[in-house]
Parts: sequence; C-alpha cells; structure tokens
Amino acid sequence: MKGVAGLNRHSGVPLYGQIAQDLEAQFAGAYEPGDRLPSVAELAEHYAVNRLTVHEALDVLVRRGLVTTVRGKGSFVALPIIRWDVRAGQDASLTQVMGARGHAVVNRVLGVVEDADPGLTGELGAAGALQRFASIRYVDDEPWSITSTWFDPDRFPRLDVLWRDRSSLHQVLLQEYGVQMKRSTRTFAALAADATEAEILRVPVASPILQARGLNVDEHGVAIAAVEHRFRGDRIQFSVELG
Amino acid sequence: MKGVAGLNRHSGVPLYGQIAQDLEAQFAGAYEPGDRLPSVAELAEHYAVNRLTVHEALDVLVRRGLVTTVRGKGSFVALPIIRWDVRAGQDASLTQVMGARGHAVVNRVLGVVEDADPGLTGELGAAGALQRFASIRYVDDEPWSITSTWFDPDRFPRLDVLWRDRSSLHQVLLQEYGVQMKRSTRTFAALAADATEAEILRVPVASPILQARGLNVDEHGVAIAAVEHRFRGDRIQFSVELG
Repeated sequence: MKGVAGLNRHSGVPLYGQIAQDLEAQFAGAYEPGDRLPSVAELAEHYAVNRLTVHEALDVLVRRGLVTTVRGKGSFVALPIIRWDVRAGQDASLTQVMGARGHAVVNRVLGVVEDADPGLTGELGAAGALQRFASIRYVDDEPWSITSTWFDPDRFPRLDVLWRDRSSLHQVLLQEYGVQMKRSTRTFAALAADATEAEILRVPVASPILQARGLNVDEHGVAIAAVEHRFRGDRIQFSVELG
Repeated sequence: MKGVAGLNRHSGVPLYGQIAQDLEAQFAGAYEPGDRLPSVAELAEHYAVNRLTVHEALDVLVRRGLVTTVRGKGSFVALPIIRWDVRAGQDASLTQVMGARGHAVVNRVLGVVEDADPGLTGELGAAGALQRFASIRYVDDEPWSITSTWFDPDRFPRLDVLWRDRSSLHQVLLQEYGVQMKRSTRTFAALAADATEAEILRVPVASPILQARGLNVDEHGVAIAAVEHRFRGDRIQFSVELG
C-alpha cells in the first residue's frame, strides 16, 4: 500500500466510499488479480478508520465484483468475471462468444449414459430413453462448468460417437444434422459445490455454483435438448434484458 | 423407510433411477419438508446397492430440487423452492406475485444512506448523490432476501419517509408519485453468504446466495432505480424465457 491515505473527512463522499475508490485505483497499478489485500486491521490502521468502515468499503468492492473474500483467508483482488448476455447472441454457444473474445474454449465429453427420466423424456417428446451427456467446459485450460445435456437418440442417432471427438456440440449439430441450436428457457439457481464438483472445477468445497438449466430448441422452436450447467460462481454471471 | 426395497435389476431403468423414484414416492407419504433422510450407508444397505449408486440417486433428487444436502449433516427433504418467472409479470413486484399465491410478504426498510457511487449515479442520470435503501423481505415470516435499492432523491423526494412505514415499495411509488415500476435488466450471480448475511437470512455462513441486480424503469422505460437482491439460494430460482 502506498504512503499515508488522504481521506477527506469533510467531503460529501462517505469514508467507506473514499476507501473503496482508493483501493480500486490501486488495483489498476500495484495489484494483480489474485493478490491478497491487506487485512481489515491493517486497512483500518492505514486509513485511520474503524474496522466497520473497512468492512463497508470492502463490501462495495465485493458488490462491484472487484474483490472476493474467502472465509478465514482474507480478501483478494478478483479475477475478472465474465458477464454473459444470454439474449444478445440468440445462439446458445458460449464457445463462440468466448472464442470471439480471444479465449480458447474446449468441451470435453466425459461420458454418455441412458436416462429414462419421465419429465425430461416428455419435454423432448421422446418415445424412449434419452442419452445424457456429461461434459466439462474449459476456458483457457481452466475448468468453468460441468454440463449435462440430454438428447433423444432417435432424433440424433450416433451423436454419442460424433460429439466425442470434437469440442463444439453446436458445430456437430450443424454439420452432421443441419440443426442450429438456440436457447429457449433458462432457470438460474445458486448451489454450493459438492466434493466431486469442487474437485472437477478446482474450487473449495461449498463454493458458489451458478446453475443454469432449461431447454434448447432448433430453428423451428422445437425442443431438441435439455441442459443443465453448473458454472463456477467466481467466473461467470448471466445478464438478461427483460420486458 | 418401508420394508425391503423392490428394485428390478433387469429393467431398463438404472438402479440409481429406481432408488430416486422410490424415494420421491415416499416423500409424498412418509416424509415432510425438512425431514432428514437415512444416511448413505443406511440407504445402501436398504437397497442392497453400493454407496456410489446411492450418491447417484441422491444427486438426481438434488438436481430435481427435492433434496438438499448439508455438509456433515446429511440429506434432507427440500422445502419447495419457488421458481419465479421474471418475464410473466412484467411488473417488478415479488410481493404481489407471492401474495396472489397466498403468501404473506413483508418488506422492512432497515436504513437509508447517501451513496455517491459514480456508476450508479450515471445510470440513473442523477445530478447528485443517491439514496440507498437497505431492506429485508420476509415471506411468511421467513427472511428471503436482503435488498439494496438506489433512488435519486431529486426524482423521488421524501421517499425515505414515505417508504419507511409501508411494506410495498411498488404501492408507495404508484400512490405517491404515480409511477409504475418494472424490471429492465437483471444479472444473475451465485455468491456465498458472509457472516452478516447468514445471520439476517438465518442460514449457515457460506450458504448459496442468488444475487440478482440491475435496473428498474418507469412506464416510459426511463431508469428510476438500481436494485441488488441477495436471495437465499434454497428458497428461490429465476426463470426467463429467451429468444
């Protein structure tokens, strides 16, 4: 931290706001993503304020997505969180959106099992059991999400073979079946990572997981896939425009 | 649990799927929301399967929102989670939606502070500092969310006085200012509850929190409020229809 803090106790801006602004300005220079911030006690001494004020300042930065706090470990400069507008590109491919921003996105199919869940079978209008694909999405070699995708094998025969060796499900569907997949509905929920998910996603157990589940449709609006993504809460958020 | 489990090892339905269905059927009879399920070891013995199969069955029920697992404590029959369609009622009032379903919703304003955050001030086109309202929403006397709402006091003078004694912000805006508030944008993120939030929401520290933040507009589409909700992840999910 630089020299002595110059807070203005007579300005209209509350002290916690000034501290938040000061810290944010320093992130641009002295700090890198992942760096640990000084402790609350150290910050309180540095700015000559009480700890509650420091907590309020950190809370502002957490809300702005600039700082993450880890229980028992302290506060850290946050990795930039991707805010993904699920409306802008109607097409359901995060791979393409992230690729256009210069990121390398790889999907790895872990396995395929039969799933006769009556709810999902009905939603996809399937006559028999579905195929459930389990996959992991990596962005720049970092695991970002665990995904389950359900397809009707009568509608997409041999998908288990065709998708296995390729990264982009969208390309496989387009090239092999002539289908342009789009998102139709999404339900967002917050979960805590269980031990398996934590290991796969390389985060602490009970880390926040943003679950997005729903249906994908073809270009005629016919439901062709059910999906359930579990995203690392520290890597992505979803924006929607309403009304 | 009832007698001996009758799993069919020769049917097309995998064992974990049969166990999940069996447990789900029992929830309708022997179990109540909040009841603890038998341990994984007990279920494995009961169904004469290995523990991995039990874990797979429980995972199905967790994904379906029927079971919640608490680390170190076991699995419990889930409280019914409200899935809220943020598109259906264009109007931004959860109070009204829940009220129509027979729930008592109360919003309590905790306090009002000045906030000169330049980003928010700009988004609301305010000339000076905003007022930030902190409030808690109770559904049937249970705390569901902590909300921050920012207003321009030049646009809504005396809102701090008018809102304080009434539960519904929407009614205050409509009756006192003639403004029908609607949601405009929402960004969804998953967070972990910090100690303060956990205490207010009566959940364990680090419980999943579904954050929904964005702008509200008036009937002409002009931004009039910034909002940030922190919902208990075990009580609510948000559904959106895309495309």
